[in-house]
Amino acid sequence: MKDIQLKQLFVSTDDYTGKEIIIRGWVRTNRSSNKFGFVEINDGSYFKSVQVVYEEAFISNFDEIAKAPISAALCVTGELVLTPESKQPFEIKAREVIVEAGSHADYPLQKKRHSLEFLREIAHLRPRSNTFSAVFRVRSLVAYAIHQFFQENNFVYVHTPIITGSDAEGAGEMFRVTTLDLDKLPRAESGKIDYSQDFFGKETNLTVSGQLEAETFALAFRNVYTFGPTFRAENSNTARHASEFWMIEPEVAFADIHDNMALAESMIKYIINYTLEHALEEMKFFNEFIDKGLLDRLNNIVSNDFARVTYTEAVDILSKAEKEFQFPVKWGIDLQTEHERYLTEEIYRKPVFVTDYPKEIKAFYMRLNEDGKTVAAMDLLVPGVGEIIGGSQREERYDHLVNRINELGLNEQDYWWYLDLRKYGGVKHAGYGLGFERIIMYITGMSNIRDVLPFPRTPKTAEF
Amino acid sequence: MKDIQLKQLFVSTDDYTGKEIIIRGWVRTNRSSNKFGFVEINDGSYFKSVQVVYEEAFISNFDEIAKAPISAALCVTGELVLTPESKQPFEIKAREVIVEAGSHADYPLQKKRHSLEFLREIAHLRPRSNTFSAVFRVRSLVAYAIHQFFQENNFVYVHTPIITGSDAEGAGEMFRVTTLDLDKLPRAESGKIDYSQDFFGKETNLTVSGQLEAETFALAFRNVYTFGPTFRAENSNTARHASEFWMIEPEVAFADIHDNMALAESMIKYIINYTLEHALEEMKFFNEFIDKGLLDRLNNIVSNDFARVTYTEAVDILSKAEKEFQFPVKWGIDLQTEHERYLTEEIYRKPVFVTDYPKEIKAFYMRLNEDGKTVAAMDLLVPGVGEIIGGSQREERYDHLVNRINELGLNEQDYWWYLDLRKYGGVKHAGYGLGFERIIMYITGMSNIRDVLPFPRTPKTAEF
Repeated sequence: MKDIQLKQLFVSTDDYTGKEIIIRGWVRTNRSSNKFGFVEINDGSYFKSVQVVYEEAFISNFDEIAKAPISAALCVTGELVLTPESKQPFEIKAREVIVEAGSHADYPLQKKRHSLEFLREIAHLRPRSNTFSAVFRVRSLVAYAIHQFFQENNFVYVHTPIITGSDAEGAGEMFRVTTLDLDKLPRAESGKIDYSQDFFGKETNLTVSGQLEAETFALAFRNVYTFGPTFRAENSNTARHASEFWMIEPEVAFADIHDNMALAESMIKYIINYTLEHALEEMKFFNEFIDKGLLDRLNNIVSNDFARVTYTEAVDILSKAEKEFQFPVKWGIDLQTEHERYLTEEIYRKPVFVTDYPKEIKAFYMRLNEDGKTVAAMDLLVPGVGEIIGGSQREERYDHLVNRINELGLNEQDYWWYLDLRKYGGVKHAGYGLGFERIIMYITGMSNIRDVLPFPRTPKTAEF
Repeated sequence: MKDIQLKQLFVSTDDYTGKEIIIRGWVRTNRSSNKFGFVEINDGSYFKSVQVVYEEAFISNFDEIAKAPISAALCVTGELVLTPESKQPFEIKAREVIVEAGSHADYPLQKKRHSLEFLREIAHLRPRSNTFSAVFRVRSLVAYAIHQFFQENNFVYVHTPIITGSDAEGAGEMFRVTTLDLDKLPRAESGKIDYSQDFFGKETNLTVSGQLEAETFALAFRNVYTFGPTFRAENSNTARHASEFWMIEPEVAFADIHDNMALAESMIKYIINYTLEHALEEMKFFNEFIDKGLLDRLNNIVSNDFARVTYTEAVDILSKAEKEFQFPVKWGIDLQTEHERYLTEEIYRKPVFVTDYPKEIKAFYMRLNEDGKTVAAMDLLVPGVGEIIGGSQREERYDHLVNRINELGLNEQDYWWYLDLRKYGGVKHAGYGLGFERIIMYITGMSNIRDVLPFPRTPKTAEF
């Protein structure tokens, strides 16, 4: 007889009621008298555990099972019995219990509250705890929801390169990738390091964004998206920054900034609806133990339109605010987290797109507006987190783009292929980047990025 | 009025027949007399293009449209008319045509056959060609099919780390990741490079496999899979190797090598069925222009059981073969591509799992069989490609694993967390790795890995 995974028991309880089944899983709790025992086991296929009742009268190895410690693995044959009077909907009356794997007494995840900091040190075991079981299942479901959203809308998924020889992105500090022997670096006659002898024949780094490459595909497939790891070698130890994180970057041809906002809004709502539907147990857990009010906030988001405000209007609102800001507000400054959160949490009380930022504080590839001062940028701010999406309509006009590249002292040659896109059928197009961990934090209520990444990489930390 | 994407026109032609619609897309061909013109346009949302008929009598800018070059972008308003006598099912009779973006005369992708080598040099434009439009749409669909397969089977998707400080994988040459200034490397008193000053406080590399980390999640969630980029710094310039490629690594607790093979077989069949269903136009194109016999081969695979043979039996078969091999066969050797292809192409004429290899030629983590000589490894060989999957049941017995680590001169300390999995509920488990590009080559018939990667990275090549 094949064993049944716990999820099936919870989803299709009727199919198994009164029947003899086999289940496998790890001990979560185990208590017994000298006649009876109750062991809760979980196999990871579902958030909830199943209670198994074992009796000395029926189980030949009662003493062995009564001693089975937390995290030991059992194989249970028994009957599924409904328990309408109990908290749990059913239990298994064991006929046979076999220990498939034992566990040492020094198992670090004993049944008590552990700090999140401690659990980070045992990242190889923490997915066995309730909190991380919920976090990483939701992470998996959100990743899938994102793929499903874009595939249903006929977007092509493109794997942009991780190792990049292109210096064109210019968005923050990068990690060097090399196979040179650092103890015997080859030198040119000038004394400079001879990168022509490196693996790729030149200097290479880890990507900070797949956007520029995604644009090349958008101008072939119309609708494309990336979903892959990106890297920032910034020495910032905050709860919101990791050195290695995943990013989603859709890019759409024949689209302007308004199409872009509509896409972002429907994507966010789709993801949240999908998670509420497919991970309700986990979401109730977060709402109860991690972030009270989480479900109300998410329900509020899916049932309301996002707000839209221009940067210029936003600066006006902030200047008139009663609140004292640490960073004074005037037109031209980059909005700080305190400003962003004031807008989304105090003024709009829901997600808000801020658009049309001064060109000086945005990237070279954003489309210059008619006023000559602002660009068609859009940032999405959400309550509790701040910026979660950054995007723009791209500058599709060859001359404007070249001007901007030169204005900023960038090297036109480095952008030959990016400029080509503007020479050959370079229609208007737009896109954005969504930080994957940011949306997971937003949906789960977890407040540290280290707790939504399986094995986080941050300054001085690359364990496991 | 909103424009309609071409895919919708092909999928729901009836909804638009006889109606006025707007479409946008890029010119693929354009020919005209002084009264009539025919322009084929494609918007990337579908493999096929749409023919637009424009007449001088109705179009005020007839001369401008007649001159629109390949890759210029047009916006067409007109009526969809069925054309049952023609090759294409319908065409658009234009009432208005607007040029949304022009194109230069030096556009490199003119209407003629280009070599695949030439197209690699313009990787930013090649997705606009028929071949690469088909390749990269199939790549996207196969990626999604893989996610769908695992999610439908309740697997948790886990993002294992890309940057790794763990030296535990030991599978080939790695890329160094660093933020040290190579011109001013910090040195300890001993004269050695002081990696404690590097970004992560120690030496780090790009991952070659997420398996060991995936195992930690499998022993929490039962069923997990990875899907991410992996790296090999091998200086091998072959048609089957890239320095950066994507890999899928499922890992299942309570599973043995037979469960593992069953999973791999159903996954491969699922992927192929999904692709045949969702990319039929593309698959017909490959069958006609890239690899005649492709569809027959794929249909053969989905409708037959895969073969299974032990390494020992396989060596026996190969020793008795009439064929002269370059590498002589005897028990203990690693099978070469010539042997693998002989088995799958000549003997079985379908996919075959080879199992139970000598422990000496396989990795330390594979489970030792009862005979003490072989391990519970499984490789899947397929006609035309050779090895496409490598996997095994993992050694779950603490003492056996430690012995093997010491036998191979590895450092037990490096494996502390991996060994922990064997101390705390370490049940039997198994998994495998599927090279994503290998399966794309197999499904499309493309014979060079450089032509199934959007922007391939190979020795001395990291363009775009």
